[in-house]
Amino acid sequence: MTVTGDKALVLLSGGQDSTTCLYWAIERFGRQAVTAISFDYGQRHRIELDCAATIADKAGVSYVCLPINTFAALGGDALTDTGVDVRGDLDTETGLPNTFVPGRNLIFLSFAAAYAYQRRIRHLVTGVAQTDYSGYPDCRSQTIESMQETLRLGMESDVRVHTPLMHKSKKETVELARELGALDAMADTHTCYNGVRPPCGECPACLLRAKGFAEAGVEDPLIRTV
Amino acid sequence: MTVTGDKALVLLSGGQDSTTCLYWAIERFGRQAVTAISFDYGQRHRIELDCAATIADKAGVSYVCLPINTFAALGGDALTDTGVDVRGDLDTETGLPNTFVPGRNLIFLSFAAAYAYQRRIRHLVTGVAQTDYSGYPDCRSQTIESMQETLRLGMESDVRVHTPLMHKSKKETVELARELGALDAMADTHTCYNGVRPPCGECPACLLRAKGFAEAGVEDPLIRTV
Repeated sequence: MTVTGDKALVLLSGGQDSTTCLYWAIERFGRQAVTAISFDYGQRHRIELDCAATIADKAGVSYVCLPINTFAALGGDALTDTGVDVRGDLDTETGLPNTFVPGRNLIFLSFAAAYAYQRRIRHLVTGVAQTDYSGYPDCRSQTIESMQETLRLGMESDVRVHTPLMHKSKKETVELARELGALDAMADTHTCYNGVRPPCGECPACLLRAKGFAEAGVEDPLIRTV
Repeated sequence: MTVTGDKALVLLSGGQDSTTCLYWAIERFGRQAVTAISFDYGQRHRIELDCAATIADKAGVSYVCLPINTFAALGGDALTDTGVDVRGDLDTETGLPNTFVPGRNLIFLSFAAAYAYQRRIRHLVTGVAQTDYSGYPDCRSQTIESMQETLRLGMESDVRVHTPLMHKSKKETVELARELGALDAMADTHTCYNGVRPPCGECPACLLRAKGFAEAGVEDPLIRTV
């Protein structure tokens, strides 16, 4: 069902999930009502941004890429930090480098909401999911609902955050992409942790993606095409 | 009462309110446990950042300044925007320029929380207040409480956001600064919208500040010193 009159902003990383969400938003709100937004935040594989731009272009929607230089500064080297012991910044429990930023999705949603507010876009769409491997706390349903409430209070708006994939497995996400006619677009997405095209096929991200396509009984257009 | 063992991060803009909060945090958590954080986000008066660094230095606390280049990009010129009509970005109701970013304090708190998380700092302290002129929705008590809940969920942490000035008038904030021995530090703060030292004394920010000091019966060290 298409909702008329409302505009939507899709957080598009250039990956499989957010691309599926883009097509979900196009079906729901209409192509002319949809804008895709990416963030250039120093991600390891900038190829993601090229993918996102290509995907948005082929889908026929507006596209914007916003820079965020703060994550890199949080990470260490660029940190204008005169008082904190850098060695103390490493997390000894998780072993995560201090480039890992907890709550990153909250920041993406906040910037997206600010962009949307300025343009009277009511709907935000994000591909976060609490199933499969993405057990990050900032991807969970409860967190996103709380964030929506915070954004509504903080911006005095009626913004809605949609998470079409929240409870879907990778298999179900592939099935949704097929239903939405988004399979061709998967050829332009990026998933591989090693940042190569064709994908390495061996990293955890490639393996999870392959599993989803296999379980859905669908050939991955990325593998077929590249 | 000093809370031992806990660390605190104070969002320090270089203004009167956040400086008062810095001294509040020092009294509550102890000087060694306090870090001050500023954001270099393209604010109109960079003198604020010089003030913040000076204030933190004189107070004997660690200080960090993080860059955020996203607000400027949201504003227009630097926007990597291929699809949105820039003329449509202006808010015809409020007349605000599109450099106005709704929910800015939510983003500051999110980045501060990320910084704090990496360093096992539990307490965030911000000088937002819902009294007097700062009626921005992202400064209100309800918003900050919701943000705290969102950060707790999104980072799986027990972060606490303190707002010592939330319900204080400017007069009461001056009185608190006096109680905390923070009046001398006021000489290093920046308030004037026109970004000049000595302050212009005529802009709304200068007038509000002067009113607070006058009502508290305290001479403003900034006026006295500069």
